[in-house]
Amino acid sequence: MKNVCLIIGAGAGIGGNTAKVFAKEGYHVHLTRRTDEDGLKNMVEEIKQNGGSASGSLINVVNENTLEETVVQIEKEIGPIFVSVYNLGAQIGNKKLEVLTVKQFELGWKMATLGLFRLSKVLFPFMVGRKMGTLIVTSSTAAVRGNEGQHSHAAAMGGRRMLCQTLSDEFASKGIHIIHAIIDGAVDAPDTLGKMLGKEKYEKLREEIGKDKDGLILPEKIAESYLQLTKQHRSTWTHEIDYRSFSDKPWWNTATQNYNF
Amino acid sequence: MKNVCLIIGAGAGIGGNTAKVFAKEGYHVHLTRRTDEDGLKNMVEEIKQNGGSASGSLINVVNENTLEETVVQIEKEIGPIFVSVYNLGAQIGNKKLEVLTVKQFELGWKMATLGLFRLSKVLFPFMVGRKMGTLIVTSSTAAVRGNEGQHSHAAAMGGRRMLCQTLSDEFASKGIHIIHAIIDGAVDAPDTLGKMLGKEKYEKLREEIGKDKDGLILPEKIAESYLQLTKQHRSTWTHEIDYRSFSDKPWWNTATQNYNF
Amino acid sequence: MKNVCLIIGAGAGIGGNTAKVFAKEGYHVHLTRRTDEDGLKNMVEEIKQNGGSASGSLINVVNENTLEETVVQIEKEIGPIFVSVYNLGAQIGNKKLEVLTVKQFELGWKMATLGLFRLSKVLFPFMVGRKMGTLIVTSSTAAVRGNEGQHSHAAAMGGRRMLCQTLSDEFASKGIHIIHAIIDGAVDAPDTLGKMLGKEKYEKLREEIGKDKDGLILPEKIAESYLQLTKQHRSTWTHEIDYRSFSDKPWWNTATQNYNF
Amino acid sequence: MKNVCLIIGAGAGIGGNTAKVFAKEGYHVHLTRRTDEDGLKNMVEEIKQNGGSASGSLINVVNENTLEETVVQIEKEIGPIFVSVYNLGAQIGNKKLEVLTVKQFELGWKMATLGLFRLSKVLFPFMVGRKMGTLIVTSSTAAVRGNEGQHSHAAAMGGRRMLCQTLSDEFASKGIHIIHAIIDGAVDAPDTLGKMLGKEKYEKLREEIGKDKDGLILPEKIAESYLQLTKQHRSTWTHEIDYRSFSDKPWWNTATQNYNF
Repeated sequence: MKNVCLIIGAGAGIGGNTAKVFAKEGYHVHLTRRTDEDGLKNMVEEIKQNGGSASGSLINVVNENTLEETVVQIEKEIGPIFVSVYNLGAQIGNKKLEVLTVKQFELGWKMATLGLFRLSKVLFPFMVGRKMGTLIVTSSTAAVRGNEGQHSHAAAMGGRRMLCQTLSDEFASKGIHIIHAIIDGAVDAPDTLGKMLGKEKYEKLREEIGKDKDGLILPEKIAESYLQLTKQHRSTWTHEIDYRSFSDKPWWNTATQNYNF
Repeated sequence: MKNVCLIIGAGAGIGGNTAKVFAKEGYHVHLTRRTDEDGLKNMVEEIKQNGGSASGSLINVVNENTLEETVVQIEKEIGPIFVSVYNLGAQIGNKKLEVLTVKQFELGWKMATLGLFRLSKVLFPFMVGRKMGTLIVTSSTAAVRGNEGQHSHAAAMGGRRMLCQTLSDEFASKGIHIIHAIIDGAVDAPDTLGKMLGKEKYEKLREEIGKDKDGLILPEKIAESYLQLTKQHRSTWTHEIDYRSFSDKPWWNTATQNYNF
Repeated sequence: MKNVCLIIGAGAGIGGNTAKVFAKEGYHVHLTRRTDEDGLKNMVEEIKQNGGSASGSLINVVNENTLEETVVQIEKEIGPIFVSVYNLGAQIGNKKLEVLTVKQFELGWKMATLGLFRLSKVLFPFMVGRKMGTLIVTSSTAAVRGNEGQHSHAAAMGGRRMLCQTLSDEFASKGIHIIHAIIDGAVDAPDTLGKMLGKEKYEKLREEIGKDKDGLILPEKIAESYLQLTKQHRSTWTHEIDYRSFSDKPWWNTATQNYNF
Repeated sequence: MKNVCLIIGAGAGIGGNTAKVFAKEGYHVHLTRRTDEDGLKNMVEEIKQNGGSASGSLINVVNENTLEETVVQIEKEIGPIFVSVYNLGAQIGNKKLEVLTVKQFELGWKMATLGLFRLSKVLFPFMVGRKMGTLIVTSSTAAVRGNEGQHSHAAAMGGRRMLCQTLSDEFASKGIHIIHAIIDGAVDAPDTLGKMLGKEKYEKLREEIGKDKDGLILPEKIAESYLQLTKQHRSTWTHEIDYRSFSDKPWWNTATQNYNF
């Protein structure tokens, strides 16, 4: 049996890079994503070719029993899940209230919030039995403030932040380390930012502020930080951490002002 | 046609008292609650006997079209809804993760978060057309921090807080005043605190810290503050306000410490 | 002896308007400010001519014993101070780190933070003896986030916010109601915004977003809200409240974004 | 010339351990503290004997020109300061308002807040010239909430948190990485917790919750995390991070409750 790192939401950004970093560290990484079977296979293959151990499955976490079966099967057939990275947002796009449907609002919540709840319900009993485990939740600015057009996203992320605090209050003392990681900026990832902006705009943004200007968060750097967080001694655990580019403004800073408030 | 104040969640606490206060101010108040038809009728009658104008309906907000039909019908038959008070929490009780079901987790979210989203979707177009309106959301401590056992409650309330910010960013400039009111303590209300504790414990708590000791938040005082908030000039709007008893500790204060952190 | 409302920082904005509102309510108002003796006299006279009771003194709160003597003298000669409004910021202007001197940094803190500490030290024993009293602190956005150029202002306001929480934890249960009021936007006040911008720019801003557009906070509306806060029943006290214009963005909202974080 | 890590406040806790960790990493570490020349010499010697490069000076940061001269001298004689750890709190002990003097309140602020401002003023021009540098500020729970008895401590720490945000907004894009590290719990350090509690109580606490129970934060683990933070790629910087023991409650969680708020 191998020590497993389970990644929910493994595209070519934070999820995929986390897989690579944890595989290099010796974990068997299990990648899940909703679509793109070829992309998934390629990532698993790439990790194997680099000497790592990996597997993957296409699951739509909003469907019943998907997360539940995935966890149980891994624990039975591959090995104990010591780390899980929940890497799904509520990416349904910016929408004004009038066009956002109840279905869409619910979908965001099912992906971001309910999914984490369901994962915790099935995974934590295993971790509690071993008195150890780490759950890293990739979060975003919307978890701490709501901007227009983000009704579903902000409600889902903000709710999930409180869920993480609740889970941590109930399970930290049982050895489960829960980390709420606030990604406060654009990540240089073709599967998320790239799709949001479209190929052309994305490449333009990369030229302008990304690449050697380092104005976009590099997902492999998040992955490295995630690995370090899993190594924290239990006397000294981090529950919340934020990340952004040195050249970006945090969510609480506003553009230049003429006067002091 | 009368100016209407619509109250979602009108039991014998903040909801019912808000109804009385707004009726006295001249509003027609429409009360909704899920159960206890007699209780609802009595409240409506009491308001009428005191010279007020009131109506009521039993609705379960988690059911489709309930909120939607209520709003449309009031706007058509009673009058313009100038104020709405969303007074539902995610009161499914403290439950450890292992006993809390997906259904229960979802129920809390449907009551507290999705309900507010649906109310906004149907109500705001009317308010935007009139360039004015107030939505007051009765919130709680769980909106700003998650304690063990509050998985559903905290996730729902925390998500709703972000939803309120999103709604406000999109609609404040269109004349809709959204207020997120954090009730940071126990309210002296038989329908919520009373039911939670049971009659005996509730009366004991009232003797010990409530009544003339004023250690429990009086719902009629919240109601008065809500009325004042609806009167704020649009140059000077409050989005977030907290309430607690003078003798209670806010959520951020901890019990006596021996040392300084 | 008269019931006194003591206002520290009574210019032609929130301070002066608070004086008028509390005088109308029947309080003897004592106004203090650092400069402009004529302005002070005029305000006192205006209140008297409107049937109110008022007095004033020019004090520089950063000087030793100024606040201390003012409080003691009022308590001895005029009457019990039931309400005090601390209305001083750390208005030393936006300055880059390289030009901001230690003296200036300290001055901001002395005005905003140390002054409140000193006022509390001398005033609270009187209030505790009477088991009641209200202290309202006019705060600002800088108390909850620091923007460039606000080294002194943000450090002073942020420190004061924590001081208010500390004071409240120690004195709320003794009957002293402490309110931290976050003014999150520009106030239409000639003595602060007017001086910051200069007469011409100020009038232009008023034309563009103020006046009947209500895009600037009206100080008389803050004053009315302050009065209401002093009337809150002790079972239902507010510790923190925010204010901004309906057409302004709160500090946590950013300008339009192209993508969801 | 050597790459320098300057530690302000280097006792036998986080400061001293940070010195050891950074020395092992190849930095010349310069340790400063206010008292205990022997303790300081011993630490410097210990680092040297382990193959590291170290120096030290006794300075009282509240005195004029101390920080200023230290920085200038190091830059001139030892090497460029690439990292500085500001490790001073406002440790004047818990004191009720009535016994806390203006002098004591000011002392806390001079140590925790003004000191950081002064350090930044002298150090940042050097760092900006090199387009890189890291400033880590050891902060505490009091930076995010004020408890009774912490008037000076909370005001100083809370003000400093806002100062860190201001500094970061002004200097992050110039290559200076500022980190506000919230130590949310008791640190197993004889020079701080030990002195606060007294030897006997300290050893008792260590037996009960520290040592192999890991209920006290280990300063060497903070030091390791600090080192990792200095290595973050500039595309992926953390500004705020919290730390506590797995068995401790975060500041926002309260003791077990009987009911849901």
